[in-house]
Parts: sequence; C-alpha cells; structure tokens
Amino acid sequence: MNGAQALIQTLVDSGVEVCFANPGTSEMHFVAALDHVPRMRGTLCLFEGVATGAADGYARMTDRPAAVLLHMGPGLGNGLANLHNARRADSPVVAVVGDHATHHKRLDAPLESDIDAMAGAVSGWVRRSLRSADVAADAAEAVAAAAAPPGRVATLILPADVSWSEGGRPAPPVGVRRPSPAPAETVESVAKALRSGDRCVLLLGGRALRRPALDAADRIARATGARLYAETFPARQERGAGVAAVPRLAYRGEQARAQLAGAEHLVLVGARSPVAFFAYPGESGDLRPEGCTVHVLAADGDDADGALADLADLVGARTGSAARPVRRPDRPGGALTVASLAAAVGALLPEDAVVVDESVTASAAMLAATGGAPPHDWLALTGGAIGQGMPLAVGAAVAAPGRRVVNLEADGSAMYTLSALWTQAREGLDVTTVVVNNGSYGILTEELRKVGAAASGTAARSLLDLGDPALDFVALARGMGVPAVRARTAEEFAAHFAAAVAEPGPRLVEAVVAPTPQVF
Amino acid sequence: MNGAQALIQTLVDSGVEVCFANPGTSEMHFVAALDHVPRMRGTLCLFEGVATGAADGYARMTDRPAAVLLHMGPGLGNGLANLHNARRADSPVVAVVGDHATHHKRLDAPLESDIDAMAGAVSGWVRRSLRSADVAADAAEAVAAAAAPPGRVATLILPADVSWSEGGRPAPPVGVRRPSPAPAETVESVAKALRSGDRCVLLLGGRALRRPALDAADRIARATGARLYAETFPARQERGAGVAAVPRLAYRGEQARAQLAGAEHLVLVGARSPVAFFAYPGESGDLRPEGCTVHVLAADGDDADGALADLADLVGARTGSAARPVRRPDRPGGALTVASLAAAVGALLPEDAVVVDESVTASAAMLAATGGAPPHDWLALTGGAIGQGMPLAVGAAVAAPGRRVVNLEADGSAMYTLSALWTQAREGLDVTTVVVNNGSYGILTEELRKVGAAASGTAARSLLDLGDPALDFVALARGMGVPAVRARTAEEFAAHFAAAVAEPGPRLVEAVVAPTPQVF
Repeated sequence: MNGAQALIQTLVDSGVEVCFANPGTSEMHFVAALDHVPRMRGTLCLFEGVATGAADGYARMTDRPAAVLLHMGPGLGNGLANLHNARRADSPVVAVVGDHATHHKRLDAPLESDIDAMAGAVSGWVRRSLRSADVAADAAEAVAAAAAPPGRVATLILPADVSWSEGGRPAPPVGVRRPSPAPAETVESVAKALRSGDRCVLLLGGRALRRPALDAADRIARATGARLYAETFPARQERGAGVAAVPRLAYRGEQARAQLAGAEHLVLVGARSPVAFFAYPGESGDLRPEGCTVHVLAADGDDADGALADLADLVGARTGSAARPVRRPDRPGGALTVASLAAAVGALLPEDAVVVDESVTASAAMLAATGGAPPHDWLALTGGAIGQGMPLAVGAAVAAPGRRVVNLEADGSAMYTLSALWTQAREGLDVTTVVVNNGSYGILTEELRKVGAAASGTAARSLLDLGDPALDFVALARGMGVPAVRARTAEEFAAHFAAAVAEPGPRLVEAVVAPTPQVF
Repeated sequence: MNGAQALIQTLVDSGVEVCFANPGTSEMHFVAALDHVPRMRGTLCLFEGVATGAADGYARMTDRPAAVLLHMGPGLGNGLANLHNARRADSPVVAVVGDHATHHKRLDAPLESDIDAMAGAVSGWVRRSLRSADVAADAAEAVAAAAAPPGRVATLILPADVSWSEGGRPAPPVGVRRPSPAPAETVESVAKALRSGDRCVLLLGGRALRRPALDAADRIARATGARLYAETFPARQERGAGVAAVPRLAYRGEQARAQLAGAEHLVLVGARSPVAFFAYPGESGDLRPEGCTVHVLAADGDDADGALADLADLVGARTGSAARPVRRPDRPGGALTVASLAAAVGALLPEDAVVVDESVTASAAMLAATGGAPPHDWLALTGGAIGQGMPLAVGAAVAAPGRRVVNLEADGSAMYTLSALWTQAREGLDVTTVVVNNGSYGILTEELRKVGAAASGTAARSLLDLGDPALDFVALARGMGVPAVRARTAEEFAAHFAAAVAEPGPRLVEAVVAPTPQVF
C-alpha cells in the first residue's frame, strides 16, 4: 500500500468521507488512490477557492471535517480566502496540500513555493509528512486537530514521493476531546449578574446559535429580562418559526453601539468580545459599552449548551418555549427592489432550508423578511472575504441532501468563485442561487462615503461600478450548466424563485435591482 | 495631503502609472485619492488574481512595474498564484495591500490576517508603512526594489489610517541600479570553451530571449557550432520571421535530457540550471548532463546583452543575421484538432502580436506552427500556476496599445480567472482569446499515466474530466460582455480567428477539439 492509499483509508476511518479537490501533477497518486477507497467521495472543483469554501460549508452543516486537495503553494494560495472564512467560522477542515517530492525540493523548480508560510496564515495545525510510513498517522492527527473544539483548519503537506512510495499503513482514528464545561463559579457569577437587576446582554456565537443552546438562552432572557444578540456574522444560526429570535449585532459600529448602550453586563456565550468590522477615522473599534462588565460564560470551543442549561437552572428559567408561529411577508408585486426581493424570499423560503447569505447590502432586508419563515439555518460570511457564498452552498448541499440550499448572493461577490456553479451542476446539488444584481460594489459606495472620502470623482467611482459592461448572470450560469432565469419585477422574481426551489438540482435566478444606498 | 495621495503621487513620479485594483473598505482612501492624481490609471478587476496577473503582463511588456491594489490578507491570498508566476518571471510588481488601521489591529476583527506571512511567500521586498509621513518614501523604495534587476514583487502593506491621515508628502524617485556586467574572465572562459571544439549549449532565459541578445547568441551559435535553447517557460521570448529561432528546452525531463545529451559545456545566459518541472518515481530532476561543465555567463539580473555582445566579439562571431523569411502553415481545413487549430493560428497570427500562451497540452503545436509567423512576442506560464493567461492578456494589452494580444488558453486554466474577460470588455482591450476546449484537464490525464498510476478507475478519471456538464465558453464570455463564437471545424476556426484579430476590442473564439493525448 502506498502512502496515498494509507492516507485516504485513514481519513475515511476517521470519519472524513468527502474530498473537495482541485488536483495537479503532484497529487496524481492521491487521485489514483481514490479508486482504492470507494468510501471517499471525490468532488471536483474548478478553482481551489471553491474547494475550500465547500469544505467550510460541509463542516458548518455536519460539524465534521471534509478534506480539500490542493496543488502546492499556488493552489493553497487560491484557497486561502475561504480558508480564512473557515478559520473565522471555527470550521473543521483537513487541507491536504501536495508538494514536490522530497528529493525535488532543493531544485527550486518553477512551482516551488513557501507552502508552510501560506498554510500557517490560516491553519491551527500544520504538518509536513516526510515518510510514507508516517503519513497515515499524520492524517489521523490532522483530523483530530481539525475537529477538536471549536474546530480549525489542519493542513497536511504531502510530498509527491510520500504519496507514491510503498510502506503506507492505515492508522487508527485519534480521539477528539470534548468541549470544556463552564466552571461552576463562572455560571454562578453570571447568574448573580442576571439576578441583580442590572441591564444584561447575552451575546451568542458559535454553537450557542443552535438549539438547544438557543432555547436555553431564550428562556433565560424571558425569565431575567436580559437581552439577546447574535454575533454579527455567525457560522450557522438556527432561526425561523418555533426558534428563539435572536437579532444580530449590527455590522455598523454606531448601530451596534446603540444596541449595546446601557448594558452593565455583557455575557459572551461562544462569541468574542464585540469589535467593529473596520476602523474609521475618529471612531473606536472596541464596542464594549463603557463601564460594562464582560463575562465569558463559554469561550470558543467550550460547552455552550451545558453552560446555558446550567445558567437557566440557576436563574430559574424553566418555562417552556414561546410560541413562534410561521409569519411570512405577503408575496410582493411591483418593482423589484431589495425590499420586494427580500419579501419574496421570506414568502417562499422552503421549510428546513439552508440559507447561505452573501447578499451583502441586501442582507439586512433578507434577515428581516425571513425571521418568521419556517425553521431554517442561516450561514453568514464569517471572515469578510467575499467569494464564499457559492462554494459554501456546494458544501452545504453535499452535507445536507434533501434540504434546499438557498444562496443569496451579491453580484460583486459572485464573480470571485463563480465556477462553483459548475460543481453544483455536475453533482446535481439542490442549490437555488439568487444573484442580487445592482451593478455595483454597493457596500463600497457606502464605505467610500463612510471613510470620509466623500468628494470622490470619476476615477474613484469607476472602481466601484460593475455596470459597464453589465454582467449577465443568466448567460454565466448557463455556460456552466446551471439553468437560469432573470427577473425584473417582483412578480417575476417570486414566480422564478418558487419554481426554482421546487425543482431538484441547481437553478439560478438573477434579480436585477436598482443600485441601492442601503447598508447591511 | 493625506498618506494615500502622497503615495499615489510618488508612484506616478516613480514611473508607475497603472494600478490594477480590486479594493475593499480599507483601501477607500487610496481609491478616493485616484481623483487627485489623474496620471494614475486605475483599472478595476473583479478578482485579485486578475489584478496580479495583469500587473505581471504589464511588466513583461514594459519592463516597468504596475501597481496592484489588494484588500488585506484574503485579497492578497487571491492574488498569490499570479504573484508566484510574476516572481518566476522576474517581473517587477508593486503590490499595495490595504490593512486595518494601526489602532484596529489588536482587536482581531474578522478580516485580521497574517498579511506579512503571505506577502513574504512571493515577494522579494516587504514593508509595512506605519506613518503617513513615511508612506511616500516607502512607496519610492518599493518601486526601486521591484525594478532592480532582475525584477521582483515588492509588497507595501498600507494600514487604513496611514492612508487617511494628513501629513503625507510625495517622495522623490529612488534610483535603480543597472544590471551587472559579466566579469571579463567569465566571458573569456566561456569563449575558450566555445572555441575548444567541445560540444556546447547556450541556455537562454530572461532578457537573453529578446533582441539584441538573441541576435548575438544566434551569431555565436553559427560561428561556433554551439546549440541554443530557450528556457522552458520564458517570461517573454521574441520570435518569428527575422528573429533567431531558439527552440525551447522541453517540459518533459526525458525530452530535455535528450536535447542536452552529449553537451560538454552548458552556458547559462539569464537562465537557471535546468531542472525537471516535477519529480517522477525513479527519475532524477537535475537535467545537467553528467560530466558537463556549467558556466554562468549571466545570472538573473546580469547584463545578458552586454555579455553576449562581448562573447560574440571574442569568438569572432561578427557575421550578420541569417535571413528568416515569413513561412506560415497553409490555412487548414477539415476537422478541428490541436494540429489544425495551431496551423490556423500560425497562418493568421498578426504581425507584432503578443501571444499569451496558457494552452498547456496545445502549446507545443502552437509553438511549432508559429515559428515562421511574422515577428511577435511569446509570453509563457512561468510558474506553473494556471489561471495566468487571461489576466496576463489584460496587462499586456494595457501595456502595448496598438498591438494585438492573442491569448491561447486551455479550458481548465481559463476557469480560474475568467472574469479577466470583463476587464477586457470594460477597457476595450485588443485581446483575442482562443479557448481550446477539449473537455478535460488533458495534461493531468497524461500525468496520471506518467506517475505510474495507470490502473486508475472511475473515481480518479472523474477528477480530470471537464465535460460533464460541458463548459460553454461562448455563453461565459458573452455574460461578461465579450463577443464570442464557437468553432467546430478548422475552416470555422480560421474564419472566426481571422475576423477576431481584425476587430478592435476583445473577442473570444471557443475551439472545440477532441480530448487529446498530446503532451507539451
């Protein structure tokens, strides 16, 4: 058995059964070995950023790592942006990066590159396997490192000769530690704050945005008067009818400050202390209200479920869930605007949908319009690196067959990793993509004003414009085998969207809206 | 004047007048400042890999750096693959990477990332500007660092507050040292070898693949019997009628070994000692013939022109140029194959064209068919990171207005950075793109066999197949505003190609060929 075969066998034995791949020559033995381990599902992506984003989406829906197969430094480079988002999502990902054979490294051949430096920038664990006898054990450790709470990118660098040489032997899975429980005194201290009559905010993030943690937080809030917020860009939030409604902390610092104003205790539950996304002249980036006491009930990777259950007990929050019936907007008519588009999505979102949201300036409206839709998961852009949406939809659909993935996508962001559509077509994935085409980097138009660069002229504005020439997403989707239609009115959009979510396989609906000054 | 204004003014004062940009929030003051410095041409790219590849293409045609504007770590990540190619091309590039404001760094906001590590992996010079009073001088040094022979990527990390704060002042250009002359004793030693009667090979690379160096090498070869080869993947080679015909050292190690077999002296002129592109089981990667003496007449960044002129004098190679009339293949008919496709390109390539070649498995046929075409430049994939072609064509066209850029592109490679077509349309660039669509990663099919993984089955082969669904490059190009047509016969292709190169602005011709076992 060669190293590649032992490696793949070990991955599947450790629970990694999907590999999103964009291989090159140095990965050919890995590719060949896939035929020896049929339990591993190899999924071809036409660009590495699609593969890494897909692995992130898979991890968010299964809490297990997928593997990605990348070709040397440039392949890893192409995958870095979505590994950055995966890192910010605490997603477990096993990145296998092929490299030159060990004896070829010193020749500085054209593809020689500093894989280790690039990997270190996004990974919580990096190892270079140097012998085929070791690679399986290295792989088992990579899986455990990726999966250890809260989850991280583990990168295994795989020289070609370690793949092709005999002497590989599968290694047993490595155990993964459980999330750490919250210390009793921490829970007691938070309970004391909640019972004190002081104004308290619970900021929920990570696993605390899923049930049962969400239910416990909701009971605590109703019993104590504490307010709940979700971190601004959650990896995955359960929401909709029957689920605790937890509003997001706003993206804009001034809005987030207003939300938190007056809080005397800020309790972090799987969320990090709130900071502004970007700095602006004359503004502080630290969003903690002055004089507010910050409590860490559960840090990244701690047991938020247990901590919230214990806390609910301590504050006597034993009441049942609030009734939250389905409440959808009316199916809209008239002009297609961000508002009517969002209303249509809210009116028609299928039950148990997985929403992948990279709609940027349309996101706030989408969130507002879907809060009362049937229960669904919402996956946000965790790390700010656009080009996440379409790949994430690939991974979510592979992870959750039978559920409809709805990818709300901005025009500018869509252009980064568009070839994800091809993989959606190839794999027959149930993804409905809505491209909100406003012909601009709408968020940057707003940012240009926000940073105080208001007096900008033609040269500056031309760098934010996507309308010349106009992008035709219907043609682009069809070019990759995904059926697509365009909507220019709210009725058209609603009809196309309703049809798309009812059909198996991928569909794209381009929603042409006017450039919008709206800000998420 | 704020830092961004001082920076841009300094760039143009230092000769950097083009900026390929994909900005984000932290770059908004840079963007706004473009209106204060009209000499800087900002060109929007929809993906960072397009911007970095365009800068590489611009540098190859002008020998001067363009700037690229990238958004933080993920933006740099997306640009790394083509910066890797630029590094291997010795192309001068000034990469400006926006970062969080200095006071925002410690908050670890979502886009916080290790820009320095990523930059270090591809740059020959990296600096983080920390004060608006310093940023202009830093920029002047970046330009000089990029431009110093042989050329490199210089990365300037630009915190947002350094852009927006007042106190900037333009800095004067920094002088760039000249290429180093070859020491007289080196030239004499090479001349002695050439006159010895031993079998000699001159391996030309970098600037030695342009005139007048090429002419001198040709005279030396004719006077001494030495053989000439070009490095396998040159950044830019002048060729065609009237230009010294210098065949490439083959990509495949066994073929390159055959080319070099028997050489007793290998003279490197701007080229590096030959190594195999990849390692294979049981093969050595070092291509130097055993017992061969290697001479470095001119290393990267040395004065190859001067060294070859001196050498020509010493060996008495004073004869004029050989007559090399235009000799084109006949315009082909019949089935569209790689051979007939190449013949059509050879028959119709416009004079003074700039050929950007990322046709991978079609490349050898393209080179063979165009050797007698009217004089042209040929830009190869220097670093092996696919996704270079379309962006490089953008930069070459911006650099060389009035010349026709012909981008020979493989289907698999095209999908990495396809949105370059949109920039071609937006800027009205005279780029004719030929996509050779064989429905597969043809090179990998060959590699899979080459690495000895011959017994591969369905799973492996599916990772090399691009035919399910078929990519429709006509639809994809039209979706980005580039007129496009498809050819399925040699006549159709020749007619479409002839029309495309005669029209101003970009055009794409999709050439549908059968999957080919041919190897470049």
